Amino acid sequence: MPKDEFEWIREHTPKYHFQNSLLEGIGDDAAVYAADLEYNQLLCVDTMIEDIHFKKKTMSPEDIGHKALAVNISDIAAMGGIPVFYMVSIAVPATWSDKELKGIYKGMTDLGAQYQMDMIGGDTVSSPHNLMISIIVYGKVEKDAQLVRRNAKPGDYVFLTNPTGRSAAGLQLLLNKGRLSEFNETEKVLLAHHQKPIPKVAAGRTALKLHAGIALNDISDGLASEAFEIADASGTAIELFKNQIPVAEELLMFSDERYWKWILYGGEDFELIGTVNEKNWPKLQDAMKSEGMLIYEIGRVTEGRPSVTLIDDDKKISLQKEGYNHFKNY
Amino acid sequence: MPKDEFEWIREHTPKYHFQNSLLEGIGDDAAVYAADLEYNQLLCVDTMIEDIHFKKKTMSPEDIGHKALAVNISDIAAMGGIPVFYMVSIAVPATWSDKELKGIYKGMTDLGAQYQMDMIGGDTVSSPHNLMISIIVYGKVEKDAQLVRRNAKPGDYVFLTNPTGRSAAGLQLLLNKGRLSEFNETEKVLLAHHQKPIPKVAAGRTALKLHAGIALNDISDGLASEAFEIADASGTAIELFKNQIPVAEELLMFSDERYWKWILYGGEDFELIGTVNEKNWPKLQDAMKSEGMLIYEIGRVTEGRPSVTLIDDDKKISLQKEGYNHFKNY
Repeated sequence: MPKDEFEWIREHTPKYHFQNSLLEGIGDDAAVYAADLEYNQLLCVDTMIEDIHFKKKTMSPEDIGHKALAVNISDIAAMGGIPVFYMVSIAVPATWSDKELKGIYKGMTDLGAQYQMDMIGGDTVSSPHNLMISIIVYGKVEKDAQLVRRNAKPGDYVFLTNPTGRSAAGLQLLLNKGRLSEFNETEKVLLAHHQKPIPKVAAGRTALKLHAGIALNDISDGLASEAFEIADASGTAIELFKNQIPVAEELLMFSDERYWKWILYGGEDFELIGTVNEKNWPKLQDAMKSEGMLIYEIGRVTEGRPSVTLIDDDKKISLQKEGYNHFKNY
Repeated sequence: MPKDEFEWIREHTPKYHFQNSLLEGIGDDAAVYAADLEYNQLLCVDTMIEDIHFKKKTMSPEDIGHKALAVNISDIAAMGGIPVFYMVSIAVPATWSDKELKGIYKGMTDLGAQYQMDMIGGDTVSSPHNLMISIIVYGKVEKDAQLVRRNAKPGDYVFLTNPTGRSAAGLQLLLNKGRLSEFNETEKVLLAHHQKPIPKVAAGRTALKLHAGIALNDISDGLASEAFEIADASGTAIELFKNQIPVAEELLMFSDERYWKWILYGGEDFELIGTVNEKNWPKLQDAMKSEGMLIYEIGRVTEGRPSVTLIDDDKKISLQKEGYNHFKNY
């Protein structure tokens, strides 16, 4: 835990900033910035807690910083927005060293710099037991389009940006062996999906710019759970076609049963799931492909009570809305 | 801990909102709102952790909710701003009941309603040990004035909105006897200052509207520490005149030595300390008085290295910059 709060703040105050709209960053009672008139404003927060969302065994300090920011940028991506600023509230127990804390900040600032995001404030307190990191992201999105979940309509195609399940598989490897063990190249891909997920900002922007009435959601709690959120918000049913859901080749070393559980219920993929009408589906495909991004058609929106059904040849399996609960259930 | 996240979110989603600028509140990936073009935007976050910032012995669930929001509104007040929205990130251990959680939300929403603030999102996760609540407040402030700490200049008067030290005295009573004990009327005033502090939004607004180059800071970590922040940010020295610092009558039942410690170093008063030049000081006094608010002249800004000195007759005592550290030091 830092001994002198003044020193700590000075040390972690960025020496320059990316965004001209920032008027006062770290160092006063609140951050001050000018709003961009052409945009609506976005705000989101996500919290990660040691032993609930990560362990020292599974994540390096840099991974923790990266991921705590990435999960929030992912929320902005799911709104089709542009991430701009972030604030960090961190509670640190005595068991974490200054060096580890610096690692966390490095993970955040390296990722933030990729999006020209500025850290504009925060709060550092001591914690009696577990490290807790809560990040707030401010972003912006054009006023004339909204990728909200309630946009889904019967007949819409359900799409997915990339295969899911790799983060959960990576977590399993990390829990089994610990992050400092030896891993082969395939395993390292899975680990990276868990430790350093990449938010899909470009895909969200591409979806937004089509003005195609798209519903969009990021996959933090598992494919089934996030599909249910869209169904619930839009008052529709969703059918997922098992033979169209992509399976990442890195998962093939595990049993069928295991990887399907991860694909459907494993969380923290931070891919985007969405819906688009039949007319706009080819346009969305073209736009994504022309920017070198993957997109898969994995189901349909139908009439009915909010639900998610997996169609497996002639079987219909009702999927649970419960998602990923990290290390324990509550 | 709530069993079903969907139910929990539904239950805590406000049925109406105060602010027309809110476009999407709770229920999607991020909150969406329109910025007011005449204002700059303010953002702040503050975190409270069980056993660090409060205990079940000292604060009811409603007190915790109230105070977690109040400390953030206080940051907006110290910028002269108007609080508008808030988000809540809460980590809940199994030892807290649904009823207690509802109490926390009641404390927040009752206070928020006083300022017509809307709760626009958040995050609820489980915690292995302590309850943690992090609140983010978004506010706005006119573009043509700034009450930043670096505004202080040699010759300025140092002012304070109300006596300090009562929150720390209230905490002492609560730690001694527990919040469910009997307290007399004087003691109850002290308890209220600790449990249900009132952010000084109106005082901040009055200071801002004078366009008087005022520096302003809210007292979360004690009078001495917050004075030091102004000295540090503005590159000045601050002298406080002991015989002009107000002593609340509720403190007189304690020894001199104890209450001066609380007045200078006790924290969480959430009063405002600021500086104003000699010419504008009478205007500030008049403006505050005409709105029925107290204001005290307690010192001067001088040339010198950043420092805070207490002038006690002919003695000069250098005050520590360290402030309030709740139940333990780090």
